[in-house]
Amino acid sequence: MSSSAPIGVFDSGIGGTTVVKELMASLPNEKIIYFGDTARVPYGNKSAGTVIMYSRQIVRFLLEKKVKAIVIACNTASALALDALKSELEIPIIGVVKPGAKAAAEVTKCNKIGVIGTRATINSGIYKEFLHKTNPDIQVFGKACPLFVPLVEEGWISDDITRQVIHRYLDELVEKEIDALVLGCTHYPILAGEIGKITGEGITLVNPAFECAKEFRYLLEENDLLCEEERIPEHEFYVSDGPKAFAELAESFLGEGIVKRTNVAVHNFENEDSDIKTYQIKRRG
Amino acid sequence: MSSSAPIGVFDSGIGGTTVVKELMASLPNEKIIYFGDTARVPYGNKSAGTVIMYSRQIVRFLLEKKVKAIVIACNTASALALDALKSELEIPIIGVVKPGAKAAAEVTKCNKIGVIGTRATINSGIYKEFLHKTNPDIQVFGKACPLFVPLVEEGWISDDITRQVIHRYLDELVEKEIDALVLGCTHYPILAGEIGKITGEGITLVNPAFECAKEFRYLLEENDLLCEEERIPEHEFYVSDGPKAFAELAESFLGEGIVKRTNVAVHNFENEDSDIKTYQIKRRG
Repeated sequence: MSSSAPIGVFDSGIGGTTVVKELMASLPNEKIIYFGDTARVPYGNKSAGTVIMYSRQIVRFLLEKKVKAIVIACNTASALALDALKSELEIPIIGVVKPGAKAAAEVTKCNKIGVIGTRATINSGIYKEFLHKTNPDIQVFGKACPLFVPLVEEGWISDDITRQVIHRYLDELVEKEIDALVLGCTHYPILAGEIGKITGEGITLVNPAFECAKEFRYLLEENDLLCEEERIPEHEFYVSDGPKAFAELAESFLGEGIVKRTNVAVHNFENEDSDIKTYQIKRRG
Repeated sequence: MSSSAPIGVFDSGIGGTTVVKELMASLPNEKIIYFGDTARVPYGNKSAGTVIMYSRQIVRFLLEKKVKAIVIACNTASALALDALKSELEIPIIGVVKPGAKAAAEVTKCNKIGVIGTRATINSGIYKEFLHKTNPDIQVFGKACPLFVPLVEEGWISDDITRQVIHRYLDELVEKEIDALVLGCTHYPILAGEIGKITGEGITLVNPAFECAKEFRYLLEENDLLCEEERIPEHEFYVSDGPKAFAELAESFLGEGIVKRTNVAVHNFENEDSDIKTYQIKRRG
């Protein structure tokens, strides 16, 4: 496998682009092939069997694109499908959960950590499991926050209703006197500013997307797969539905000025067909 | 086709059970076979092509169960897939949109009607189209309300945050001086009480689920398919994922005491397999 080969990144939908943003920042030479399963989003309330089946389909698609390593940018798929996929693959694969848990364990001083995410991620207990492997004394308080994703997708960020929802979900965690909070869903970093104002300075927000990008760099180095050649890679984005809506939302998720002109194409699992129509993610500002 | 054959009802997920509730009330002898596509819910932001493809798969499943007629209990699928399905089928099929539009046109005196629903339903303009066919003078004001479904699924019904979200979405419709409001998504009737308090007595709320059940009765009569035999039918519920979660939520959607013991089974389109595990929708109270 050549170090100039692309890396594969996948998510249930748009959220994984917050991980792409961190990967672009920490690994500027790497060409990214992203798959967002927007036809079947969200994964957050699907069963493990279904999430594993969908993830396998996507990994097969990425392997056809000759990727050298894979990042599961979706917390739910990382929680439910990483072990199954790892045992089946010959290339390195990483999820967002383990790096996020590791960073939280390093950050906490009082050994009380809050974890927020979709129902599936919280019910899976995956963050708790990894945190306890690092340090069995850590107390973990999980809280599912199903309203956060639609609030972000409505664009209600600096918003009074959103602040009340944050209070409703997080006050109980603040009362437990946690000192670290894992943003265990890819949409949540978009709300980090508002969450931080409500949880206060005593609680460090841990962004698994950021931690995952750091960890992925080590993984590429270890496997002699890091692309050293200085280049401006042309990333490729694929979705299973709604490329136009994806391209529009991706602009705000990827942040200003990071992507110049990136095309979004459609791949459909039902008939294994890739649509050639493409939509551009435009540069902002 | 025998009048004792079951009727098929399908939806993208749990919401269609509000239509089932109305069908049970208006057609107590009819045996219902329900399919909720919970693995791929929601349909509300998917493309027309994808929604038609998914609807065709479900209709094929219902036909194998020998249904005599079909109700599309999903506004999005009614908006996007009804015409395609109707042209392909030999049995009667009805959606929720047309009956809802018809009732709203009858109710309005000032010819100003509001329609709320998912983004896909509103963007499709399907309610507007049907309303204009009935009366070209009617002004239609559409508004997508993407937060309503997750609020209902959180159980935040009589809730201050929900009331603020209702205001945020609906104040602009009230200002237009509409006198009828179509609840164009199957989850919304659950919020009807709170919506009505905010929109006030001057605005009649139209529930397409109720109108659809009335219209479906006529359709069965017209086609000599109404079951006249007095019986207590054993309904069947199928979902593509998460039967347990479905059974739990369906309790509150179906209302108290309507269903005694109904099993929920899983059918998976990826491997065309029906899981025999069943979960009971329990009777409340």
